Amino acid sequence: LLTLHHLEYSQSFRILWLLEELEADYNLRKYDRDPETRLAPTELKELSPLGTAPVITDDEGLVLAESNAVIDHILDSHPDSTLRPGAGDPTRPDYLFWFHAGNGSLMPMQFMNGILTVMTARTPALLRPVVKKVTGKVREMLVQPRLKAIFDQMEADLGPNEWLAGDKLTAADITLSYSIFSAEAQGRIGADRPNIRRWLQQVRDLPSFQRATEKDGRETMVFSF
Amino acid sequence: LLTLHHLEYSQSFRILWLLEELEADYNLRKYDRDPETRLAPTELKELSPLGTAPVITDDEGLVLAESNAVIDHILDSHPDSTLRPGAGDPTRPDYLFWFHAGNGSLMPMQFMNGILTVMTARTPALLRPVVKKVTGKVREMLVQPRLKAIFDQMEADLGPNEWLAGDKLTAADITLSYSIFSAEAQGRIGADRPNIRRWLQQVRDLPSFQRATEKDGRETMVFSF
Repeated sequence: LLTLHHLEYSQSFRILWLLEELEADYNLRKYDRDPETRLAPTELKELSPLGTAPVITDDEGLVLAESNAVIDHILDSHPDSTLRPGAGDPTRPDYLFWFHAGNGSLMPMQFMNGILTVMTARTPALLRPVVKKVTGKVREMLVQPRLKAIFDQMEADLGPNEWLAGDKLTAADITLSYSIFSAEAQGRIGADRPNIRRWLQQVRDLPSFQRATEKDGRETMVFSF
Repeated sequence: LLTLHHLEYSQSFRILWLLEELEADYNLRKYDRDPETRLAPTELKELSPLGTAPVITDDEGLVLAESNAVIDHILDSHPDSTLRPGAGDPTRPDYLFWFHAGNGSLMPMQFMNGILTVMTARTPALLRPVVKKVTGKVREMLVQPRLKAIFDQMEADLGPNEWLAGDKLTAADITLSYSIFSAEAQGRIGADRPNIRRWLQQVRDLPSFQRATEKDGRETMVFSF
């Protein structure tokens, strides 16, 4: 039996949702962040090869981290699921693009954006204008244009498609959920993104998402810096 | 027939190597960076959904970007290849971990590190000490520990294993090559990482890697800021 080691307000919510969507049998072990540092507890960090959530373990000694690796591993044991369109399926290229673009392109930009915010906030007030100018430049020249390109593409793809890779929910939607809910929390999904807003509502309406939210016990999956 | 749109000194070298390893039929279209800005040419940016390399196209209207999506798509049409261990294969968890950790964990930290360097370098000399202190803190608290954790795990895994996921070259090695060669160029793969150094030599000795290097026509795949 698989155990999901789930950290509150973190990317591991996606795995919780995936397991609920699959109606899989699993153990859930929840970890709280340190109330002061907001970091994961040592116990979880020591379990994970890179000190990051999510991690799954099983009775046969498996210890696997890295969100998309965990998703692929879980889907391996559910070969009949439509969450991962197979080779030759017409939705496969869109699936592959969005499944990989989440952690490969979108998340790194969002993460960098968060770090730039922390850098500025932690600089003493007198020196802050200097750091604000430098971080502002990186946002303006790199982070904002790339985020815009990704959300523009997403908005366009969600025109003809109900979900990111066609008419069915796939693991691409699940893995991207963390990034899209983060973007919403930061006010990036405005009225000019009606398709992404519709997608967010679709997700919130899913019974599997609602069950995952209930098991998580938090009002949101999103971590704020 | 598939066309690889390959940008010099970029991640798309990995796709070139993959295609050579598979002895696939393909067209190669090469693009040079702008000699001054070092950015990709507009022509390539316009082709790619997110303005990034690699991109592949085919005769049936496919346009696919995002390195690991491209790798999975190409491997779909080579089902007998051992480059992607299938569900149930004992090397599958290691394969999935390293295949996803490259773009999901390692590359974002290396990219952030590069941006911190650029931020410092582009700050006027008088203000540079302030920015250097702030970026130094991010390196010390976030980037260096995470890079260390990843390379420690890699060094450990390459003890019992010849390649990252067992005794055979897989797409995990190919996708991670860009990050590992970058780390080598930055002096991060020292004498305390003998297994990763052995891996680098194994890669250089591969005929497919040598053919890809020849077709690329550059001395390295690595982009330096």
